[in-house]
Amino acid sequence: MMVIMRKGYTEEQFQGVLHRLEEVGLSGHPIVGVERTVIGVVGQVYPELRDHLEIMPGVENTVPISSPYKLASREFKPDDTVVTVRDVEVGAGKTVIIAGPCAVESEEQILATAHAVREAGGHMLRGGAFKPRSSPYSFRGLEEQGLEYLARAREETGLPIVTEVMAVKDVELVAQYADVLQIGARNAQNYFLLEEVGRADKPVLLKRGMASEVEDWLLAAEYILAAGNRRVIFCERGIRTFETATRNTMDLGAVALVKRLSHLPVFADPSHGTGKWYLVEPLALASLAAGADGLLIEVHPSPDHALSDGAQSLTFDSFQQLVHRVRAIARAVDRPLAEPVARTGV
Amino acid sequence: MMVIMRKGYTEEQFQGVLHRLEEVGLSGHPIVGVERTVIGVVGQVYPELRDHLEIMPGVENTVPISSPYKLASREFKPDDTVVTVRDVEVGAGKTVIIAGPCAVESEEQILATAHAVREAGGHMLRGGAFKPRSSPYSFRGLEEQGLEYLARAREETGLPIVTEVMAVKDVELVAQYADVLQIGARNAQNYFLLEEVGRADKPVLLKRGMASEVEDWLLAAEYILAAGNRRVIFCERGIRTFETATRNTMDLGAVALVKRLSHLPVFADPSHGTGKWYLVEPLALASLAAGADGLLIEVHPSPDHALSDGAQSLTFDSFQQLVHRVRAIARAVDRPLAEPVARTGV
Amino acid sequence: MMVIMRKGYTEEQFQGVLHRLEEVGLSGHPIVGVERTVIGVVGQVYPELRDHLEIMPGVENTVPISSPYKLASREFKPDDTVVTVRDVEVGAGKTVIIAGPCAVESEEQILATAHAVREAGGHMLRGGAFKPRSSPYSFRGLEEQGLEYLARAREETGLPIVTEVMAVKDVELVAQYADVLQIGARNAQNYFLLEEVGRADKPVLLKRGMASEVEDWLLAAEYILAAGNRRVIFCERGIRTFETATRNTMDLGAVALVKRLSHLPVFADPSHGTGKWYLVEPLALASLAAGADGLLIEVHPSPDHALSDGAQSLTFDSFQQLVHRVRAIARAVDRPLAEPVARTGV
Amino acid sequence: MMVIMRKGYTEEQFQGVLHRLEEVGLSGHPIVGVERTVIGVVGQVYPELRDHLEIMPGVENTVPISSPYKLASREFKPDDTVVTVRDVEVGAGKTVIIAGPCAVESEEQILATAHAVREAGGHMLRGGAFKPRSSPYSFRGLEEQGLEYLARAREETGLPIVTEVMAVKDVELVAQYADVLQIGARNAQNYFLLEEVGRADKPVLLKRGMASEVEDWLLAAEYILAAGNRRVIFCERGIRTFETATRNTMDLGAVALVKRLSHLPVFADPSHGTGKWYLVEPLALASLAAGADGLLIEVHPSPDHALSDGAQSLTFDSFQQLVHRVRAIARAVDRPLAEPVARTGV
Repeated sequence: MMVIMRKGYTEEQFQGVLHRLEEVGLSGHPIVGVERTVIGVVGQVYPELRDHLEIMPGVENTVPISSPYKLASREFKPDDTVVTVRDVEVGAGKTVIIAGPCAVESEEQILATAHAVREAGGHMLRGGAFKPRSSPYSFRGLEEQGLEYLARAREETGLPIVTEVMAVKDVELVAQYADVLQIGARNAQNYFLLEEVGRADKPVLLKRGMASEVEDWLLAAEYILAAGNRRVIFCERGIRTFETATRNTMDLGAVALVKRLSHLPVFADPSHGTGKWYLVEPLALASLAAGADGLLIEVHPSPDHALSDGAQSLTFDSFQQLVHRVRAIARAVDRPLAEPVARTGV
Repeated sequence: MMVIMRKGYTEEQFQGVLHRLEEVGLSGHPIVGVERTVIGVVGQVYPELRDHLEIMPGVENTVPISSPYKLASREFKPDDTVVTVRDVEVGAGKTVIIAGPCAVESEEQILATAHAVREAGGHMLRGGAFKPRSSPYSFRGLEEQGLEYLARAREETGLPIVTEVMAVKDVELVAQYADVLQIGARNAQNYFLLEEVGRADKPVLLKRGMASEVEDWLLAAEYILAAGNRRVIFCERGIRTFETATRNTMDLGAVALVKRLSHLPVFADPSHGTGKWYLVEPLALASLAAGADGLLIEVHPSPDHALSDGAQSLTFDSFQQLVHRVRAIARAVDRPLAEPVARTGV
Repeated sequence: MMVIMRKGYTEEQFQGVLHRLEEVGLSGHPIVGVERTVIGVVGQVYPELRDHLEIMPGVENTVPISSPYKLASREFKPDDTVVTVRDVEVGAGKTVIIAGPCAVESEEQILATAHAVREAGGHMLRGGAFKPRSSPYSFRGLEEQGLEYLARAREETGLPIVTEVMAVKDVELVAQYADVLQIGARNAQNYFLLEEVGRADKPVLLKRGMASEVEDWLLAAEYILAAGNRRVIFCERGIRTFETATRNTMDLGAVALVKRLSHLPVFADPSHGTGKWYLVEPLALASLAAGADGLLIEVHPSPDHALSDGAQSLTFDSFQQLVHRVRAIARAVDRPLAEPVARTGV
Repeated sequence: MMVIMRKGYTEEQFQGVLHRLEEVGLSGHPIVGVERTVIGVVGQVYPELRDHLEIMPGVENTVPISSPYKLASREFKPDDTVVTVRDVEVGAGKTVIIAGPCAVESEEQILATAHAVREAGGHMLRGGAFKPRSSPYSFRGLEEQGLEYLARAREETGLPIVTEVMAVKDVELVAQYADVLQIGARNAQNYFLLEEVGRADKPVLLKRGMASEVEDWLLAAEYILAAGNRRVIFCERGIRTFETATRNTMDLGAVALVKRLSHLPVFADPSHGTGKWYLVEPLALASLAAGADGLLIEVHPSPDHALSDGAQSLTFDSFQQLVHRVRAIARAVDRPLAEPVARTGV
């Protein structure tokens, strides 16, 4: 950390800062510049130190130097982490497609979708049994019944199951059914939930929060990693900006940046990222070109009757076309589509 | 809801929309304009309908007309709601100040602060026993021990206690100690938690999420109200924008707007809203002038040693000065400071 | 336009709105819904009407139905516009690369870069002679001398020249040298300048403003088109959001959306969009996959000595590698790289 | 400036940075920390240096220490600057109100408004003769005719005139009529225009850009100051954020912060800041409480017929009530309303 002194600080204020640093076992190394004096802090800094120093008389500001996440960083682990989900390898240089409806609505709906996803070339099945909804009056999922339908779909198709868990109390239940636990954007800073999935024995798909900076997102992963679960997959799904012509603003610069800062795989969700079915395909292709290891795509047998997110869901036909186009891009960036899952994989 | 047809839609597409509306018991009323045809939808609309219609061929877009929240709206309840916390009336035309440290750190710290808050003229004591922290390596609160210290402070000073609850499993415990349950910005869309405090028998202070639009915020309150708890107090604490010179951007337009849209009281938290102790006072005054019913202020016996949020905490002296200035503004806007709480109020 | 009446409006207020509409030659078509009454406005609406109606008693809000831009829309002109720049066709189904330094610094620098751009496969040369800089103490360009160097580079390489014009008074001068007039992000709502380039006889590359919504951006183009110049090329270069880990946030959803809303070609500038040289290539590939017709790339002989934007500039080698990768993506999306320009094209 | 080295940098890379600094006459002072090595740069840094260093091998990042503005800073001039406009002192501890219509529409309109503003207690008259409009099809002002009407209004009422100048070519003309030259939000980074008004002999009211960080805003002032004009008044008018319930998001934290960082007066414009007439008064009061030296308020004889910004304009009656309430707040914060201007002041 660097401490920037105000212009015209007094000797007493300067000594005060050095003394405060000593008090907590750190040493201060002053650099007297033309305009400013800066004190470099050497030693093991703790998170609250910035606040303590910024409030001292004579101090203008502080600047952190080290990143606050460790386990999630490439500096801690230079090689790419591969997360294995049943037979599917995520982050191993092949493109992986997770697809399915926003919400599980019925057995027929999820089975039909699972077969369509599998036939088109998708590798895992997504579907929400617990749904976070901004209005208390919206459909909120079939809960355990929905998980059972998902399990049945896995049995029939061999596709591993990705589903959201919204509460600490549900982690154990959801982990009994799911192959991957999804943390939604609204829970991206629900630290108790992050720790609980950090203690689960299942990989975690961690969506970025609507207002999460890249650093916040890496720190959310750090919560999971620090609790013992090293199998985290990031998923960019758009951030909230002034632009309302799309539902969110997909930040593909963050996809490329997180691939560089972290060893963990990064997915992209162009369905939530755009909110409009006709923008899903171009943004899916763009996500892969930016470096994403895989995609999360909403597919529904009949989007105009979906109980949630219909406007951003693809039909079976348009999903099939998307996979076709994805195949070409995936080859062009040298991360070809992963092999289809074995039907008897379960 | 209005359905806007694309230019050049076909008669078949037009009939398709009317038919889809009939299918769900609604009626469509077309208006053929110079540039566009619009279909007004009459009947009880359900939240997913927009998605269903937007995806139909020939449809350009839909526009919602009704607001999705009901119980939180002034249309539902025109008169101001007064929330009574022990002897303190919130939203009754007098300005209420809640103050205290970000986190309860020790018995001495919270007792000293409680006395200072009371003497300066504050009406309730805040202090976190459970702390949401962006890094897993930061101090995260004394938990139940912290709640006990808060209760002791209430015994000694008569100040009601406001403290954050972060998890469904902790609501019962926290409600045993607290007079007001605080929902933090990071949990502003944690719907299970909102419902759980909606079933508690304590008022709720509901902070705005960093990325919550005014409508999201009102819908978060709707979750609590719909679960049966009618005692909700809003608290603006700044939103996340491109401006990083302050920790957040306080949105006082939203304070004035929510006072108009809703019957519930609205507080403001200039400590989180600015992140800098020297901006707390001007923004506290501004919040009241914009129409806030009260303030949430961070105070610490020694901010340069605080275990969290030191940079935005006031000393006892600067808090006393703040109350002095608040008094003048509160009179000028005709919402004078509420009476001091009785010491034997407990 | 739709006028939404408040709940509990009076008959007099309702008649007032109808009367106000008649006053300006429009007719009102009421729809009485379960919760709200809405009045559809039929006739040629003028831009200020919304303000006039919103302020009337009994009116809750208004909702625009028609888009405010005409000439820029696909509804006005369904087929893609092809903008021809000397021998290069922009928007004709082939990918076009514009590259060069942020600023023209010397004759040697621009000539060396022009040759490198050409050899690597670039189609046009960019370089600023007039530079907008946030600080008055930064290097601000060689002005006419810079334009002359650019012209010499064109002579030697055959590459058409793209260069920024910042002021009405300079349009004539810049148009004498340039093949494409660039409007920078900071001038995206400088309406006098937009109109002036709208009267020039050169194509315009119109960057999106840092705070421009898609609609603002289309309206900026509308200014140019309405003044008579139909050769506009959009260029997405990132918007300002809360994320500061990258210089701007590239909005590739907007690229795909504008391709749908407008007939004009859309480029992307991943150099400004990310601000970091190591993110330029992945975002360049992503932009093409999202549907961009071409790229704008900063290249410099020695980025660590550049007079501006060094951190986001590619070396000749890394540019060559970028073109190599672009070639693969461009083929995969079926918009192969345009042919190299003829050296004797000038 | 501080240069942060990557982990695992080589000795050669380290020497490379020190050598590069020497090359430009600076010296590097290394601090070897537990996690990172940092090099403090001592000497007169130039703006492009960050780019040059960030691109060097072994360098992770750079951190600026000095602020890039000088003349606008309190460090350069600790005492408040008072800007005198005819008889009105701005920034001298008394609250100043500038009011009038968005656009000058006719002689009657501007004269009636001027009298109403004066009678209610306003100190200057605003009104646009040149209007920036997002659509080319909107009303764009009466131009010189409008300036003449403003001058007549000044003659009749003694109120100094504030009016926007949008183009370099118009500065001379506008300065012949105006007492204060206004730079609008869309021109906040139109550097040629900033320099041109920097050469004019009239005070400048400098609005904040929709996407301007506080530092950008101070740098825009720096352009004017560096060109020789020391009479700059800042005006906060809301920034663009994700919140669309109000037209813009007023950033009153920035008002308080700029008062601290700069010696120049700061105004606030709650009409543009909120976009809704019923939010103008609360935000006007809030702005003063946050520390603003004055207000810019839109007033119109008949807002429901205004040619621009009707929805955010006050009627004469509501303006009179606003001044009444402002008077109370201004006293409470010890910056009472300035004296009325003398009618024969011209």
